[in-house]
Amino acid sequence: MKKVNGGKKKGVFILFEGPDRSGKTTQAKLLCDFLKKSGFKVLMTREPGGTDVGEKIREILLDPSNKIFPLTELLLYEASRAQHVFEKIKPAIDKGYIVICDRFTIATMAYQGYGRKIELKLVKDLNDIATLGLKPDIIVGFKISDEEYEKRNRGDNDRIEQEDEDFRRRVNMGYSKIFSKTRDIVLIDASKPIHKISEYIGKVVLKKVKCLLNL
Amino acid sequence: MKKVNGGKKKGVFILFEGPDRSGKTTQAKLLCDFLKKSGFKVLMTREPGGTDVGEKIREILLDPSNKIFPLTELLLYEASRAQHVFEKIKPAIDKGYIVICDRFTIATMAYQGYGRKIELKLVKDLNDIATLGLKPDIIVGFKISDEEYEKRNRGDNDRIEQEDEDFRRRVNMGYSKIFSKTRDIVLIDASKPIHKISEYIGKVVLKKVKCLLNL
Repeated sequence: MKKVNGGKKKGVFILFEGPDRSGKTTQAKLLCDFLKKSGFKVLMTREPGGTDVGEKIREILLDPSNKIFPLTELLLYEASRAQHVFEKIKPAIDKGYIVICDRFTIATMAYQGYGRKIELKLVKDLNDIATLGLKPDIIVGFKISDEEYEKRNRGDNDRIEQEDEDFRRRVNMGYSKIFSKTRDIVLIDASKPIHKISEYIGKVVLKKVKCLLNL
Repeated sequence: MKKVNGGKKKGVFILFEGPDRSGKTTQAKLLCDFLKKSGFKVLMTREPGGTDVGEKIREILLDPSNKIFPLTELLLYEASRAQHVFEKIKPAIDKGYIVICDRFTIATMAYQGYGRKIELKLVKDLNDIATLGLKPDIIVGFKISDEEYEKRNRGDNDRIEQEDEDFRRRVNMGYSKIFSKTRDIVLIDASKPIHKISEYIGKVVLKKVKCLLNL
């Protein structure tokens, strides 16, 4: 299949990654507002979901009443991702948008690879298949301590969030390992105040975006 | 990941494959009844679907209002398949059941490979991933002519059946190619009378089942 990364890049693909309750969704929205105010066309989206079909897949994935095997879970995430890339992310980047995506391939490595213990090579291969090789230009990664995680428990957990403590620890360790090997990542300590984090992300990302778009 | 085919086989996995309207579902049910009357424990199942989660995936796949990209479609079929193998097919075979499955990996090669023009190697790789290498012991393949296909149009077509004539021709050609390369397949001409076909399938399959189970 044709790679989608070929040709001149018109927009920018920004990825927000990190464990649950790390505040990444809040920060992604704040960055979206900031970049819009700075005059950019911005599309905010999320995984799993992001498209009509993807949201239907998301419902299956997150419904606590569903008993889903790890490999099924992985393939459902990748199905949602393929739809997302083809229908929404790639067309928006081609039209010059800054696309901010709340979770993508790294989450699958952390949750299905490290968390569910599916071979990392298989997860990586399926990530490559589902994205046709599309990679983020900027990655913002959130780290959260165990204490901070416990403090932020709201009790309304979905199927994945209901997993046990061991699972969560594996996922967080997975994120740490992946982040430590990711070049040029914007790393965020989730315990810092929201406005401090958003200021920092805004500043660093804006600089990177201007570089990427030759502004 | 561990292959599921390892160890001693207790049951038998029978696959019914062929284009739409070829009568394979009717014949699969008739074989199921026949084998039950012959004293076997039989489980009849189908793809996409076959499990609670699989049926939810099936709904997404067959709903004509969903716009689904070929790669998404392929991954959804494989997700449904992984769940099906883990939750239903493999445990039943382990318990000594004869499992009759209405469509499986060959359908994905025919529809998503030949029909949607996704690289056959990618389809095969994903089939292998989703099944963990589980292969059918007996394959019953149905062939239907274009004239017969037209005669059997009931008008209540799902998303896949609504595809154009070119798509259907590619799928049927795909089935023919795959069948011609499949060793030891039980080939059925769909134009023959139902009771003649069921008699033939019953006779041939029963013999094969007895061989496989050393009866």
